[in-house]
Amino acid sequence: MSSVGFLLDPRLAADTVPVARLDLCEVRLMDDARFAWLVLVPQRAGLVEIADLAPSERTLLWREVDRAGAALRAVAPCDKLNLGALGNIVRQLHVHVVARREGDAAWPGPVWGSGPAEPYPEAARESLAGKLQTVLSSR
Amino acid sequence: MSSVGFLLDPRLAADTVPVARLDLCEVRLMDDARFAWLVLVPQRAGLVEIADLAPSERTLLWREVDRAGAALRAVAPCDKLNLGALGNIVRQLHVHVVARREGDAAWPGPVWGSGPAEPYPEAARESLAGKLQTVLSSR
Repeated sequence: MSSVGFLLDPRLAADTVPVARLDLCEVRLMDDARFAWLVLVPQRAGLVEIADLAPSERTLLWREVDRAGAALRAVAPCDKLNLGALGNIVRQLHVHVVARREGDAAWPGPVWGSGPAEPYPEAARESLAGKLQTVLSSR
Repeated sequence: MSSVGFLLDPRLAADTVPVARLDLCEVRLMDDARFAWLVLVPQRAGLVEIADLAPSERTLLWREVDRAGAALRAVAPCDKLNLGALGNIVRQLHVHVVARREGDAAWPGPVWGSGPAEPYPEAARESLAGKLQTVLSSR
């Protein structure tokens, strides 16, 4: 499969800012200062479930999810990584990787459905996105 | 790594019933009739994060997660699979695979933190666990 025809869902685009493009996924930072939170979107048209990806691309997806988790750990405090692929609201296949801290705004519950996002101040958002991009590009 | 020293966390054991043992994971059915919900627990001691697994075992984990999703789809209504690895409460590495239906008790929110479980009547639990075991054993 190729990325021909891939268009980022406008709701994902609105909630996030771009960080990096890996071989399979576009990596984006959720604009919510409560959590260090990445969203990985495989750049393939028409995907809904993980099983819609070819097996070799599934392996690549999980490798990129591992990289995203390592990048979050490198630049943000993290007591536990949370991973999720839900898609109940936005059907375009996307995987959440979140650095959770004990006592954060949703702890120990999930970040999904935990109330309205609190956008970063612009400088903080650009700084964090830049650090994540650097780490993700370094291997 | 081997399964020597692996012990299922008692909270996971209390919330679930056994379905199958795959090469890596013990597969268990969440005893909550609101959702068709499997939990996969890699049978390795001391794991907390996905990254604690060797790379070859990570691949195996995700393959078994795919199998669990396909098994749920084969025996239960499903509009969207939900996948999650949180571990904020129970740290032993485990992956949730949930068959979601539009309008189910938590829709479109996540199942985690969605209120108290509603245990299955015993016959229904055994029937569903048996069907899932059959599908999971058939390949």
